[in-house]
Amino acid sequence: MEDESPVEQAAPEVEARVRASFELQGLMRHLGARLSRISPGHVQIVLPSRPEITQQHGYIHAGATSAIADSAGGYAALTLFPETADVLTVEYKINLLAPATGDHLEAEGTVVKAGRTLTVCRLEVFGVTGAQRELIATGQQTLICLR
Amino acid sequence: MEDESPVEQAAPEVEARVRASFELQGLMRHLGARLSRISPGHVQIVLPSRPEITQQHGYIHAGATSAIADSAGGYAALTLFPETADVLTVEYKINLLAPATGDHLEAEGTVVKAGRTLTVCRLEVFGVTGAQRELIATGQQTLICLR
Amino acid sequence: MEDESPVEQAAPEVEARVRASFELQGLMRHLGARLSRISPGHVQIVLPSRPEITQQHGYIHAGATSAIADSAGGYAALTLFPETADVLTVEYKINLLAPATGDHLEAEGTVVKAGRTLTVCRLEVFGVTGAQRELIATGQQTLICLR
Amino acid sequence: MEDESPVEQAAPEVEARVRASFELQGLMRHLGARLSRISPGHVQIVLPSRPEITQQHGYIHAGATSAIADSAGGYAALTLFPETADVLTVEYKINLLAPATGDHLEAEGTVVKAGRTLTVCRLEVFGVTGAQRELIATGQQTLICLR
Repeated sequence: MEDESPVEQAAPEVEARVRASFELQGLMRHLGARLSRISPGHVQIVLPSRPEITQQHGYIHAGATSAIADSAGGYAALTLFPETADVLTVEYKINLLAPATGDHLEAEGTVVKAGRTLTVCRLEVFGVTGAQRELIATGQQTLICLR
Repeated sequence: MEDESPVEQAAPEVEARVRASFELQGLMRHLGARLSRISPGHVQIVLPSRPEITQQHGYIHAGATSAIADSAGGYAALTLFPETADVLTVEYKINLLAPATGDHLEAEGTVVKAGRTLTVCRLEVFGVTGAQRELIATGQQTLICLR
Repeated sequence: MEDESPVEQAAPEVEARVRASFELQGLMRHLGARLSRISPGHVQIVLPSRPEITQQHGYIHAGATSAIADSAGGYAALTLFPETADVLTVEYKINLLAPATGDHLEAEGTVVKAGRTLTVCRLEVFGVTGAQRELIATGQQTLICLR
Repeated sequence: MEDESPVEQAAPEVEARVRASFELQGLMRHLGARLSRISPGHVQIVLPSRPEITQQHGYIHAGATSAIADSAGGYAALTLFPETADVLTVEYKINLLAPATGDHLEAEGTVVKAGRTLTVCRLEVFGVTGAQRELIATGQQTLICLR
């Protein structure tokens, strides 16, 4: 599975806004997640594998997988919102396709449709071990723009 | 919103099986979640409010809300599975209905349909402050029984 | 599975508004569906079994099941909207729990959370044969209020 | 939005199997839908616009949009199944992104992950008017292989 993410970089003020909001998310810090790419309509979050985020078989817990997917989609939407607007997740659906393993996970949030009120994102999470990158979860998310 | 959860207690060996599996979930411990009720086809998980599980506005992060909802549904299914079987989440969908606030969250997983291979659960998460209990998320989950 | 639907009847002007809109849905007429109950926050639609709505094994097609579920939820939301507002489905998720059989299907849409902009409904579809009523699909739907 | 569908044609026996099953779906015939492309892991269904499939504003009903999306995904999965296996929809989620208008709709079902028991598909529906093709719905579906 190759990486089809857009390479365009977000404007500095957009990137600053996303990073400032991410820093305020206690959960992302507590899980050990970090923002790794911010493009217009696309955000990537990386989560290194560690015992604190596992489920009963030692794989990464679906809750951790979902948390970074949800945040990636939310920030992907935020990159396209007006400067003073904020984003809330309305709902999302996620399929866990394979055991979440790897040195780290990469969650990709990509805007599929940006509307005035509602935005829809595609969510993908990959398990990465060295050069191998496997799709382990895929989802779809609805977000609301709060002005 | 009143608590309509069944009061029947699970058999001791079922409860022991669920508790043993929960103890292995590094994420639940890391979030500070605990099992609070185990009935046949129904499990409740409690998550106290704390800075480590917040999003950017100080509310509890949708990822934490989803994580306990997912675990509650998974263990609700497990209570009905054969003794040697294990459970995996196939997918779930969750609507975030209101900001996740309160002294703690209570996630309820309830089996709607138990099949030989697939089980479907209803997921509900309540924000609890003193005697007040507000529905803050509702979802639906598909699980697979691994024999 | 007993019928827990509320018995309260909607106000005559609300019922008239829902019926007028339903009459405009070419698909409902084409499938042979009819409105059977309109309460505040709850609507039931009945769909008699017929060869025109089957899938490849002769059961009722998931598309027909979903169509009446979607309409039931949409009209359940509409019963709570201001008089001049209209309703659109944002998204829904549905699990097909059992083969859709019976003399007819009954779709129940029930408002779980009514918001100013977004409303969330629970969707349930039952297959009914004589006195037997089996849950064959369950879903969750997000709707938007257009003022 | 360009058409990224694979161009590879399915093997004749696979195509025959899909077409035979589709012919048995009373609903597809009743709606006026037809199979327009069958590739390994991908199926396209076309639905011409007509008054019999509308909602209250004259757009195509979400139920019709969903029905062809569901069938497209189901047959996409079937193209990859063993010859004697059958397919059932476990669940799907769909976002309605824009009013469903156009001379016809094109539903695309694409396998994202093919497993021994469960298969996950991406669902997309486009409204087509002349040379214009707009994404009007996007979804995600879980299917089960019945051997």
